[in-house]
Amino acid sequence: MPSAELSALGVREAAYAIRAGTVSPVDLVTACLARIRALDGALQAWAHVDERGALITAHERLMEARAGRFRGPLHGVPIGVKDIFDVADMPTTGGAKPFAHTWPRVDAAAVTRLTAAGAIVLGKTVTTEFAYRDPAPTRNPWNHGHTPGGSSAGSAAAVAARMAPLALGSQTVGSVLRPAAYCGVVGFKGTHGLVPVAGVIPLAWSLDHVGVLVRSVSDAALAMSVLSGKDLEPSPVGAPRLALAHELLGHASREVAMHVEAVAGAMARAGATVSKVELPASFHEIHAAGLTVLEAEAAAYHERWFGAHADDYGHEMRSLVEAGLTHPATAYLRANRARLAFRDEVMPILMAHDALLSPTAPTPAPSGLGSTGDGSLCAPWTSAGVPAVSLPSGIAASGLPYAIQLVQAAGGSARLLGVAAWCERVLGFSQAPD
Amino acid sequence: MPSAELSALGVREAAYAIRAGTVSPVDLVTACLARIRALDGALQAWAHVDERGALITAHERLMEARAGRFRGPLHGVPIGVKDIFDVADMPTTGGAKPFAHTWPRVDAAAVTRLTAAGAIVLGKTVTTEFAYRDPAPTRNPWNHGHTPGGSSAGSAAAVAARMAPLALGSQTVGSVLRPAAYCGVVGFKGTHGLVPVAGVIPLAWSLDHVGVLVRSVSDAALAMSVLSGKDLEPSPVGAPRLALAHELLGHASREVAMHVEAVAGAMARAGATVSKVELPASFHEIHAAGLTVLEAEAAAYHERWFGAHADDYGHEMRSLVEAGLTHPATAYLRANRARLAFRDEVMPILMAHDALLSPTAPTPAPSGLGSTGDGSLCAPWTSAGVPAVSLPSGIAASGLPYAIQLVQAAGGSARLLGVAAWCERVLGFSQAPD
Repeated sequence: MPSAELSALGVREAAYAIRAGTVSPVDLVTACLARIRALDGALQAWAHVDERGALITAHERLMEARAGRFRGPLHGVPIGVKDIFDVADMPTTGGAKPFAHTWPRVDAAAVTRLTAAGAIVLGKTVTTEFAYRDPAPTRNPWNHGHTPGGSSAGSAAAVAARMAPLALGSQTVGSVLRPAAYCGVVGFKGTHGLVPVAGVIPLAWSLDHVGVLVRSVSDAALAMSVLSGKDLEPSPVGAPRLALAHELLGHASREVAMHVEAVAGAMARAGATVSKVELPASFHEIHAAGLTVLEAEAAAYHERWFGAHADDYGHEMRSLVEAGLTHPATAYLRANRARLAFRDEVMPILMAHDALLSPTAPTPAPSGLGSTGDGSLCAPWTSAGVPAVSLPSGIAASGLPYAIQLVQAAGGSARLLGVAAWCERVLGFSQAPD
Repeated sequence: MPSAELSALGVREAAYAIRAGTVSPVDLVTACLARIRALDGALQAWAHVDERGALITAHERLMEARAGRFRGPLHGVPIGVKDIFDVADMPTTGGAKPFAHTWPRVDAAAVTRLTAAGAIVLGKTVTTEFAYRDPAPTRNPWNHGHTPGGSSAGSAAAVAARMAPLALGSQTVGSVLRPAAYCGVVGFKGTHGLVPVAGVIPLAWSLDHVGVLVRSVSDAALAMSVLSGKDLEPSPVGAPRLALAHELLGHASREVAMHVEAVAGAMARAGATVSKVELPASFHEIHAAGLTVLEAEAAAYHERWFGAHADDYGHEMRSLVEAGLTHPATAYLRANRARLAFRDEVMPILMAHDALLSPTAPTPAPSGLGSTGDGSLCAPWTSAGVPAVSLPSGIAASGLPYAIQLVQAAGGSARLLGVAAWCERVLGFSQAPD
C-alpha cells in the first residue's frame, strides 16, 4: 500500500489490516513518520518525536503479529500523546517553560492502556501552556493562517494532517472538541472520570477529562473502549431524538447557527425527531461557576511554582492563577454547588433525548494564531462532566470545516457514540485538508 | 415481660422477640416511653417525643406481626433520631435557634431505610448546635455532673439510659464515637458515603458520616446493614491482628493509656497478635487539614444565614464559620489534598491488620457540661473517611466508662464489625448506668 494511503488509514482500519497481515506496523509507522517529517516543519503539531523508539516498537509488534500474537485491539496502531500526559523516557513539558519540565519514568494511565492494547507512541503532540489558553505555535492544517484551536492543538492538527490516526487530548473547558471542530476531525470525551487522569498534569481536577482526537466515530468508540476498560461500542441506532436549545444557537455566529439549523433539517429529513428545548435556569450560572472552579483548582496546583516563576507563565495562565489565588474557599464551594446543580437539572433534558445538538464553537477556526478560539459552547458540558462529541459537518465558504457538538447525560457515552455514528452517516463528511 | 426488661432489650433481641410473638411492639414502645418520661426531665436526651405517633405506629406493626407480615429486620423496634436528620412531620431544629428550624415533609434517607425495615421513630434526640461543639443540655446517664459528649449527645444518652435500643447519630469529627465512649455504649460509623446523608443538615459534607449508637456490636451490624443496604453481618473471626500506634496512646491521659495497654494485653492473652505500628508522616497534617476542610465547608453552608443571624449562633459554631469565611480556596484545596494523602498513606497499615486499636477519647467523660470533650482521637479517621467503632471497655475509678476505638481501611466495615465482635467477647462489658 502506498505511504499516503497508509497514513490515511483510520484506527480500526489499520488495526484490522495489521491483524489480517495486509499492513505491517513498520510500514504504517514509517508512513506516519514520513508525513511528520514532510509537514511538521510548517505545522508544528509535535513537541517530541521518537522515531527510533517507534520503529523499534513497530518491529516488535510486526514480529508478534507474524507469530499470531496480538496485544489487543490497537496492535501496531501509531498514536500521538498530548504533551501533558507522561510517557516514560520522553520529556513532559506541558507546553511550559523549563521550570515545569519532567522526564517521567512511568506512563500516564491512559497511555498504559493504549500501549497495553498494542498502540505505538510516535511522540508528544504540542499543547498550549498547561493546557490553557495561551496559544501554541501549531497551525491549522486546513489553512496555516488560522488557529487549530487549543489546548489539544497538536493532537487535532496531527490527526487532521494524517500524521497519526489517533491522538490523546484533554478537555477542561473545550480543549478536545474545539480543536477537533477547527481541524475537521472527531473529538470525544466521556463522562468525568471515565478515563483515569493519573500521570496527566492537572489543570482543574474537577473538570479535567481525557479525550481522543480521531477521524471517525467508530475510531472514537474503539479508542474510548480501550481507554475506559468498558465496552463503548455503540449498538446500531434508529433515527434519533435530537434536542436544539436556542441559548446555544444564539451564542454562535449567524453563519454557524444557519449551518446547524441546516444540519438539523438534514437530520430530520433522514428521520430524526428534532425538538426545541429550554435549558434550566442554572445554565446561566454555569460559565461563571465553571470558571471559578477552574481558577481556584489551577491556583491550588500552581501555587507550588508561582512564587518563584510567575514571570515564566504566559499571560492567560498567569491571569488564571492570579484570579484563583483571590477566591475565598466559600466562593469555590458555592461555584462547585452551582456546577453540580446544573449537572443535576440538565440531566432529565439530556436523558429525554438521544442527544443535544449544538455548534461545537461559535465560528469556524478564527484567523491568526493570537487566540485559540472560543470554548464557551463546550464549557457547560465539561463543567457538568457529561459525554460530548464534535463531528465535522461541512465546509464553510472560507474553506474551513464546520462542526456540530452532540451531548448526552452522565453515563451515556455508548449511547452518544451510537447517535454520533448515525449523524456521521447522514452528514457523509469525508474530506481532509491537503 | 416487665417494662424494665423490655427497655433493656437490644435491637436484635427485640426484633427477634417481636417476630417470635413473645414481645408486642406496643409494650416495647410503651416501656421506652415510660423510661423517657421517668428520666428525661433530668437527662434531657430528647428534643421532641412523638408519643402518640409512636404508639399508633406500634399498633400497626403489632397488627402486621399478628398477621405474619413483617416489614423487615427492624419490625417494631423503637429508635431515636438525632435532631439534624429530617423526620416527616416533626420539627428539625439542628439544636439551633428558630431561624434554622424546619418542619420537613419527607424523612431523611437514613430514616426512610430504618422505618422501611419496620423501625418506629420515638422522636428526635438532642444534638449540639448544628452538630458542632457548643454543649447541649443533655447529661451523662452514668453521672449527671459529666458531659455525655457531643454532638450526638441525646442519642448516646438515650441508648445508654435504655430509652431506645438504637439511635441515629452523625460524625464529622468525633460526634458518634466520643459520646458512645463517654456514655458506655457502642458507636459505629462506616466508610464515608456508606449511608446517604440526604435530609441531614450538613456540617461539612466531605467529612459528614451517618452512624449508629447501640448497646452491642451485633446491633451495630444489623442497623448498619439496614442503613447501608449492604450485608455487613460479620463472619466469625479468629484471633485478630491488632495494631497499636504510640502517637495515639501518647495523646491520651496516663490513666487511659494504661487502660488501653491493659486491654491490648487481655486481647493478646485471648490470642490476638498486637503489633506496634508507625503512622505515616501525613498523620501530623491531618488535624489541621481536617479542621480547614470543616471550617470552609461549614462556612459555605452557613453563609446563607450568617449575615442576618451571626448573633444567634453559639460561640464555637460562630468561630467555626468565621474561620471558614477567611480561608482562601487554595488553602481549602491544599487541606483536602493533605486529607486524601493521609487516607491513601494509612491504608496499607490498616489493611495489614484487622484493626488499629486506640483509646476513643483521651479521658473518660469530663466533668461539667461546659465542653463536649476532646474528639481528636476520632478526627483522623473521620477525615480519612474510614470505618471506626467505639466499644465500652471497663469502668474507671471515677465510675465512668472507658472505651476503645477500632479502625479499619475504607470499605472494611464488615471486617471491622467482625473484629469488634471478637473484642467485645474478650472485654465482656455488660454494665449499664442505673
